[in-house]
Amino acid sequence: MLERFKVPVEDRVYVPAEQMREMTDAIFRGVGLSDDDAALAADVLIANDLRGIESHGVSNMLRSYVAGYRAGRLNPRPDVTTTRETATTAVLDGGGGLGLHVAPRAMDVAIEKAREFGLGAVNVSNVGHMGGAGYHALRALPHDMIGVAMSASGPVSVLPTFGAVPRLGTNPMAWAAPAEEMPPFLLDMGTSQVAQNKLRLARRVGAQVEPGWIAGPAGDPIMERIQVPDECYLLPLGGTREQGSHKGFGLGAIVDIMCSTLTGLGAGFLALTPGFHLLAYRIDAFVDPSKFKRDMDGFLRGLIETPPAPGHARVVYPGLLEAEEEQVRLAEGIPYHTEVIEWFRTTAQEMDLRFEFLEAEAGEGAPA
Amino acid sequence: MLERFKVPVEDRVYVPAEQMREMTDAIFRGVGLSDDDAALAADVLIANDLRGIESHGVSNMLRSYVAGYRAGRLNPRPDVTTTRETATTAVLDGGGGLGLHVAPRAMDVAIEKAREFGLGAVNVSNVGHMGGAGYHALRALPHDMIGVAMSASGPVSVLPTFGAVPRLGTNPMAWAAPAEEMPPFLLDMGTSQVAQNKLRLARRVGAQVEPGWIAGPAGDPIMERIQVPDECYLLPLGGTREQGSHKGFGLGAIVDIMCSTLTGLGAGFLALTPGFHLLAYRIDAFVDPSKFKRDMDGFLRGLIETPPAPGHARVVYPGLLEAEEEQVRLAEGIPYHTEVIEWFRTTAQEMDLRFEFLEAEAGEGAPA
Repeated sequence: MLERFKVPVEDRVYVPAEQMREMTDAIFRGVGLSDDDAALAADVLIANDLRGIESHGVSNMLRSYVAGYRAGRLNPRPDVTTTRETATTAVLDGGGGLGLHVAPRAMDVAIEKAREFGLGAVNVSNVGHMGGAGYHALRALPHDMIGVAMSASGPVSVLPTFGAVPRLGTNPMAWAAPAEEMPPFLLDMGTSQVAQNKLRLARRVGAQVEPGWIAGPAGDPIMERIQVPDECYLLPLGGTREQGSHKGFGLGAIVDIMCSTLTGLGAGFLALTPGFHLLAYRIDAFVDPSKFKRDMDGFLRGLIETPPAPGHARVVYPGLLEAEEEQVRLAEGIPYHTEVIEWFRTTAQEMDLRFEFLEAEAGEGAPA
Repeated sequence: MLERFKVPVEDRVYVPAEQMREMTDAIFRGVGLSDDDAALAADVLIANDLRGIESHGVSNMLRSYVAGYRAGRLNPRPDVTTTRETATTAVLDGGGGLGLHVAPRAMDVAIEKAREFGLGAVNVSNVGHMGGAGYHALRALPHDMIGVAMSASGPVSVLPTFGAVPRLGTNPMAWAAPAEEMPPFLLDMGTSQVAQNKLRLARRVGAQVEPGWIAGPAGDPIMERIQVPDECYLLPLGGTREQGSHKGFGLGAIVDIMCSTLTGLGAGFLALTPGFHLLAYRIDAFVDPSKFKRDMDGFLRGLIETPPAPGHARVVYPGLLEAEEEQVRLAEGIPYHTEVIEWFRTTAQEMDLRFEFLEAEAGEGAPA
């Protein structure tokens, strides 16, 4: 993540991951989730926070999920059913449950099918937010598989190239592949120039956005560096046509097709719930997995050993910084904004929950 | 394609597609391909030319293929063999043949597996250039399938984000999905900011490249608008980190992983031949195909009916302009640069071939 999106040092409270996991788990149980689903949903958020994906951790997302349960938009005890199935594919109705715990179970079905037949793909409808695609793609790796996860997720906020009205969500896609010794490859990207959550973060920490990241209300790309305005649209990856926004727009459309249309939800911009597409490739259906993982080590090492361009310390591959950050945060705790801690304090009071870390303003792991 | 890359009006020779197909077919037979393979290889190039994908038509590519056959780098009569196979997957050894005719046959295997099991994926090693990924992805559509094609193709020319030495090819990926009445969706994109072939075209027609498209020899992105320098590297989609090049880099790495590493060719930048990954999804394994195609009509119509931003005439989706161009070129002929026609004249003489269109400097379909 760019430095400007990190929580400013003076606003940081360090919380050990396991304390935050327990609290998040308790909140999910508090809104009615089963123990298993609560643990799984908490694991998604804490995994994101540990890997430095603040935009998809507890800070932004947990309060919106809690609001969703309280308003009845999310079903804490969903009946997940299979509506169509073949040897290698399934379509699930998520029963109105949160994607954080429905998506991993859908990926598990894809993994089982791939174990038997080589490939497996599962789509999901009638489901809430996935909580970041990367977690679900990574789930395939311990099985010596490559994992892919996509989510067509509202709200519609991204302009098509040359358009003045948004037609796409930020529509993330993630691809994960295992290595032997190196941290796994994980590309986990929105198909917009910048995630909606990052704009929210930028507003919170007062950061500016780059030229070509957003467009004004008439659809004109804003080509100077500014604070996030109240009224704006997201642009597809690339930003402008000259810089390849037709590719970002196309990638976003693919996510809509694979997640919404292929799931039976219609045109992406009309779909009433998110749709997911989860895909697993069994590596030994193509090549010996140990050779694949050694070759991945060579590929990933080759990338990070690339001599850097002037002004840059090193080359990193997708997933490396997040794996490094995870080690730091496991040791030092996860830095949260005081405003987030305040939300936890209030919510804990409302739900009659008590937590140690609310008493201390800094976790044990905070740097001296 | 951006206007600047088109053949300048004064240099255009219009040739009817069927004349160029016959000539291309004869040249492929002339270098030793079987009738079937020659027809398939010619179809790929003419389909690209008809759709306005000049960078992957006869102008740039045919001469390099002919040189490859003459130098013994390409095998005109390859023995394509299956080296690993499961219910849904296969790995083919392309026998050193040209990808133009090996890839469609590999996609046909994926389609057969998807017909039986829902999904099918075929990887190919020991093979020449694919000739554009889009053609092969589109091949799935008449079977009511979604098609995906990727190719990790040398030469290594694209810098990783922050890198000073190239580590990736332009690594194209294509996704195609059918509609009922609308021209099909086809995203067919390189994962670099600009295709290597486009730089060659830009040099030929004297066009400039945009800021953030290429980097100088030290790896520093060139941020002004310039003529293509002799020494330069390609940048990943996005161009700079601020504009999302880490996503373009990641997408290029996925293509390397899926096409090179998963095929057993090792790290992408060390692979000695291109590797292909072809994937087919049978739509009715997920949803009724007629509903899917009607919904695609609604999605694609919704995209083109998006009100345009100031200064733009309309919004288009990936594949639409190419389908429109195909109609124009079927009626008017395909515009080629005089230099390309000259190559055909020379090559025809060398191979003792005769063609009508070489006698006329303009095809019948040329505008009055």
